[in-house]
Amino acid sequence: MGKEITSRAQDYSQWYNDLVIKGSLADYSAVRGCMVIKPYGFALWENMRDVLDRMFKDTGHQNAYFPLFVPKSLFEAEEKNAEGFAKECAVVTHYRLKADPNNKGKLMVDPEAKLEEELVVRPTSEAIIWNTYKGWIQSYRDLPILVNQWANVVRWEMRTRLFLRTAEFLWQEGHTAHATAAEAIVETKKMLEVYADFVENWMALPVIKGVKSPNERFAGAEDTYCIEALMQDGKALQAGTSHFLGQNFAKAFDVKFTDRDNKLDYVWATSWGVSTRLIGALVMAHSDDDGLILPPRIAPVQVVIVPIYKGDEQKAQIDEKVGEIVKNLKAMGVSVKYDDSDNARPGWKFAEYELKGVPVRMAIGARDLQNNVVEVARRDTKEKNTVSMDGIEAYVKNLLDEIQTSMFTKARQFRDERITKTDNWDEFVQLLDNKGGFVSAHWDGTAETEDKIKELCKATIRCIPLDNPQEEGKCILTGNPSTQRVLFARAY
Amino acid sequence: MGKEITSRAQDYSQWYNDLVIKGSLADYSAVRGCMVIKPYGFALWENMRDVLDRMFKDTGHQNAYFPLFVPKSLFEAEEKNAEGFAKECAVVTHYRLKADPNNKGKLMVDPEAKLEEELVVRPTSEAIIWNTYKGWIQSYRDLPILVNQWANVVRWEMRTRLFLRTAEFLWQEGHTAHATAAEAIVETKKMLEVYADFVENWMALPVIKGVKSPNERFAGAEDTYCIEALMQDGKALQAGTSHFLGQNFAKAFDVKFTDRDNKLDYVWATSWGVSTRLIGALVMAHSDDDGLILPPRIAPVQVVIVPIYKGDEQKAQIDEKVGEIVKNLKAMGVSVKYDDSDNARPGWKFAEYELKGVPVRMAIGARDLQNNVVEVARRDTKEKNTVSMDGIEAYVKNLLDEIQTSMFTKARQFRDERITKTDNWDEFVQLLDNKGGFVSAHWDGTAETEDKIKELCKATIRCIPLDNPQEEGKCILTGNPSTQRVLFARAY
Repeated sequence: MGKEITSRAQDYSQWYNDLVIKGSLADYSAVRGCMVIKPYGFALWENMRDVLDRMFKDTGHQNAYFPLFVPKSLFEAEEKNAEGFAKECAVVTHYRLKADPNNKGKLMVDPEAKLEEELVVRPTSEAIIWNTYKGWIQSYRDLPILVNQWANVVRWEMRTRLFLRTAEFLWQEGHTAHATAAEAIVETKKMLEVYADFVENWMALPVIKGVKSPNERFAGAEDTYCIEALMQDGKALQAGTSHFLGQNFAKAFDVKFTDRDNKLDYVWATSWGVSTRLIGALVMAHSDDDGLILPPRIAPVQVVIVPIYKGDEQKAQIDEKVGEIVKNLKAMGVSVKYDDSDNARPGWKFAEYELKGVPVRMAIGARDLQNNVVEVARRDTKEKNTVSMDGIEAYVKNLLDEIQTSMFTKARQFRDERITKTDNWDEFVQLLDNKGGFVSAHWDGTAETEDKIKELCKATIRCIPLDNPQEEGKCILTGNPSTQRVLFARAY
Repeated sequence: MGKEITSRAQDYSQWYNDLVIKGSLADYSAVRGCMVIKPYGFALWENMRDVLDRMFKDTGHQNAYFPLFVPKSLFEAEEKNAEGFAKECAVVTHYRLKADPNNKGKLMVDPEAKLEEELVVRPTSEAIIWNTYKGWIQSYRDLPILVNQWANVVRWEMRTRLFLRTAEFLWQEGHTAHATAAEAIVETKKMLEVYADFVENWMALPVIKGVKSPNERFAGAEDTYCIEALMQDGKALQAGTSHFLGQNFAKAFDVKFTDRDNKLDYVWATSWGVSTRLIGALVMAHSDDDGLILPPRIAPVQVVIVPIYKGDEQKAQIDEKVGEIVKNLKAMGVSVKYDDSDNARPGWKFAEYELKGVPVRMAIGARDLQNNVVEVARRDTKEKNTVSMDGIEAYVKNLLDEIQTSMFTKARQFRDERITKTDNWDEFVQLLDNKGGFVSAHWDGTAETEDKIKELCKATIRCIPLDNPQEEGKCILTGNPSTQRVLFARAY
């Protein structure tokens, strides 16, 4: 009965793939590294997108849309950014196919339709957007520009994983322009807070807010702020980034403005983004060996009701009662599905909705009707209760809130137990090998040390937490003086 | 004062470009044929998208997402479809750039990173989707599949126009799979009705529903249904299409299912789409020489309020009163903007919001406050009225409804006056040259005649209207016998 899921203990990576594919979130496609997001997975993404979009608009941002393609000459204008993405760019070189004379019914690229200038499929849109902003900005009166874009981007990754790392993915990218560095930094931090709010309060996933070390910075940024989450296998996952870009792109694209004192200066920039990768984080952080566990606030279906009956008469009685409950729950803003399809047994349905992570399942049989009760099962703890029909809607609504809180609390406890301080190199390595999670250790602040640590034990600096306490110490690797601990981890 | 707009009489085409660019809907980009959709234009698209998305969901469809790229071998599988789009395909041939050794700081396509198989940037997604459906469909129980995708697509057009014909555009494409031809045809027609409902009742644009002649069919379809609208210059514009694809794609991708009688058969398909082209239609159909005229139901801003004051004291009094009105209008679901910015005079603001097509403008001065009145101007007719503040919100709400109705009625009258019957070839040509609009004439049903007419006078058969009356007649060109009139027009 039901679909077989590899357990976490058996093969964590296969467990993840099983959940994504058998849970109907996504599937592989015929295109290397690209996925198909299935209707159930896309409904989840829509819920996430709609909440974020509201948050962006509430903080004064507007959406716009910029071209998919970036001419090579624009792409290479900001050198660090170009260098950072050059190795993973899909490039359009031709604009026409023609019949292949040597292969009937087949097509070939028409060599006569070669573009004069190659087009890069956007891996990120700073270049095309700052080239556009040049035409929008003359004076401080044109600032700030607070624009966001929901789009697909392409990064030709060699090793891909559904949602976590795909050649094409969906994301949003905010691109703002400001008159002062201070204002741009405020924006950078504000959007980091928006991301943290969303991931913690909607995805039920605790995050650590921090700043990246120079090695891990976005190519072309002055500073990269990030939120870091912890997965069940003890690996960290970067869940969102917000970049202070300084005047780098303004200089590359010659975007100047006249300030209040009538002086010309380059414009200050930020960019910030989260992607469908968040779905991978959601799956890995909360689910169990029976399937997905989705937080109620973003679950495509919050409540599923399954009837248990023999014969049409019982069915009709249950239908009538469920009809009321469905109507009342919908009026309370709860998304509910009544699965009375007759092509599967209740047990099969139970397993299927467990696999799909529906937060609350109700089962109603003929005897339940007589007793005026219903069985309510919560997905996260698997706890089942027989509950009176009277006021069932309020009970369910409260239960959804409780599940949301409880999922966050559980994930936070898991994460907090896995932030470990050490001042000893051997312990540092052992912690990474055995316990996992974040290791809080002193670092001498050099890129060389960071590289060496990565080489020795595959751990990177995930972030320097915001408001990090300053304390004297010695670098975990070199013993050189250090002023603060930073968080190391192996990461996705 | 304000931005200069070319008049329709002077240069219709330039008038259109002026509205799109100066009305802040969109702009040209650095990429040939691709546009930037600006925040105001994108807000309009969001409103249109949200209404359509709700309509699709209410008719049982779910959204999903399929890859941007189509491997050439899949693209060419359905031969007619491939042939139809081959000439306008952007093709990705390489997946990496590298430093150009002869040009410091510049990049070049890395010749060693050539793809084994070229990837076509989707001009439409039947191929990649039907290749995916193959894995989703085994039995009649898996049908129907009712899926829609919101996406960007690329068609390398040689002559582009903002919104109307761009190399990249945004659209939705529905792709459904059915067990029977009859069911697929019902779906095809149902979605045509959804489109007609949306375009007429939300965009205030009357359409003629019909079927395309074989010449104008979607490449790979058995039948293409369409809605055709009329622009102010007398040219027709195809506003949406819904295709019955028969078993063509199922055969090309070998998608079979077991039916109720346990027999194997190919699956039946439909696809249907509307795009950002609709924005072009909206602009061309309703606007005037002073700017855009947007229908209230999809306008990003429905009401703008402009204060007219001298000094802070007057301003404060107006602010207070407007604060109330704004609050009340918002509570009624009206989107309203209070423009009290001090960097432009009222007259400049009036012109700006006329240009942007905001349906209702209110102006409030100090004397108006004393008299408990406000000036209300409607954009479509430019009518102004001085209205009592008492119940002003209900007045405005009603006015928005009236504008919506009135815009539709005006456009329908314009269109109806331009459907002209003729049985005489010279008159046929004269009508196209002088009056414009749709010419209803007999056609002998052959592709040759249709081609010849197009060659002679640039008119195409826009559609054979649904429920077209059958009547004996003679073909307008050849004099051969005909059984019905069809609608000819010059078209965008």
